[in-house]
Amino acid sequence: MTQNIYDDPDFFAGYGKLDRSIRGLDGAAEWPALRALLPQLMGRRVVDLGCGFGWFCRWAREHGAAQVLGVDVSERMLARARSMTADAAITYRRADMEQLALPEASFELAYSSLALHYIVDLPGLLATVQRGLVPGGQFVFSVEHPIFSASVDPGWRLDAKGRKSWPVDSYFAEGPRSTDWITKGVIKQHRTLGTYLNLLLRLGFLLQHVEEWTATDEQIAAQPSLAEERQRPTFLLLAARRA
Amino acid sequence: MTQNIYDDPDFFAGYGKLDRSIRGLDGAAEWPALRALLPQLMGRRVVDLGCGFGWFCRWAREHGAAQVLGVDVSERMLARARSMTADAAITYRRADMEQLALPEASFELAYSSLALHYIVDLPGLLATVQRGLVPGGQFVFSVEHPIFSASVDPGWRLDAKGRKSWPVDSYFAEGPRSTDWITKGVIKQHRTLGTYLNLLLRLGFLLQHVEEWTATDEQIAAQPSLAEERQRPTFLLLAARRA
Repeated sequence: MTQNIYDDPDFFAGYGKLDRSIRGLDGAAEWPALRALLPQLMGRRVVDLGCGFGWFCRWAREHGAAQVLGVDVSERMLARARSMTADAAITYRRADMEQLALPEASFELAYSSLALHYIVDLPGLLATVQRGLVPGGQFVFSVEHPIFSASVDPGWRLDAKGRKSWPVDSYFAEGPRSTDWITKGVIKQHRTLGTYLNLLLRLGFLLQHVEEWTATDEQIAAQPSLAEERQRPTFLLLAARRA
Repeated sequence: MTQNIYDDPDFFAGYGKLDRSIRGLDGAAEWPALRALLPQLMGRRVVDLGCGFGWFCRWAREHGAAQVLGVDVSERMLARARSMTADAAITYRRADMEQLALPEASFELAYSSLALHYIVDLPGLLATVQRGLVPGGQFVFSVEHPIFSASVDPGWRLDAKGRKSWPVDSYFAEGPRSTDWITKGVIKQHRTLGTYLNLLLRLGFLLQHVEEWTATDEQIAAQPSLAEERQRPTFLLLAARRA
């Protein structure tokens, strides 16, 4: 079963201090690239898988979405999301995404930001998304990049010449990785890039774009620590269409 | 311009000693996985980009292909390929793949094994392949995996605990990588996985399967050194279809 770390009080408190929690979408360096993959939202029905504080749900409404369903497993996150919304066209629903039921052919866009790498039964969830989309509907999501998540002991390595590299090992050993991020023992699921792509292809999705996110020159100029994002990808962004 | 290392006498002599040069397709560990991506060949027209000694061209004929065009830049390789063939339905043509011209809509299958990572102008070659395929025709190829090719100083690293990892750095610095493989200074082109996929998608190819090759349990049992292939991918295998 997928860990619900976001309802851990310490994790929740720490997560709330991240730029992306305080500033919302504009606090996430990969947001401009993810946004570029989105279709027009005017009049569209949107589901956000792992909506957290609801930043994207509100943004979608501001950009014309007719209805938005935000789904998350975390009570704490949904409570805060609800406290920031007075919009009858946004619904927040608590659900374990592995048990998620969606009405069939009811959304023009399924969106998910950095949530799918927590899910143990990803094939089941992707099948639910596929059925929930109208034909031609889009699925746009981000996950931790498999290069980032592969190692059982992640972290920059310095070689004898002082050069920095990111270790890849255990790439084909798919499954849980326990990392210390905000708190100890946060469990994410490592999958290969091939697994993500072939799961979608087998469900009949048409791949549209695969973005291995890196920082732009402008972002690095504004925040020099982002230069390390040129060395290895942290995030994988993907756009697919239901056939 | 793409380096023609295969016509270097020392490289050619060394390459000729590899298992895949002596035993052909069955000497390449990734061949069963690549073969699994191929369509039926009976009566089909096939082009092999970077055909080398022509092992695949002959295999395609044995499996019913009507005509096979093998293209390679290396005179030495083509001379040996020609010496092994007495089949009027196989044509070997010497061409710099960056200047390649193919008749339009004339092939049901374009195939390439471990050749495209030498090509500087890959977008140009892929456009040529797209035009050369009939609508619905397939493009099946293998290249060095971007995880394998990224580092400017590739090679296994051992950490203080004796654990082995493969370094990824400079992932987004696409372009030449000089490695010492058979001889010194062999130049290959590093590209991100996103670049390979998005080049195909922009040309209107439909992605069918993306295989990050690793060794099977049986292969590792027969050749234990292949166990390191579980740590990081060496080869990327891809199947796409012209829309």
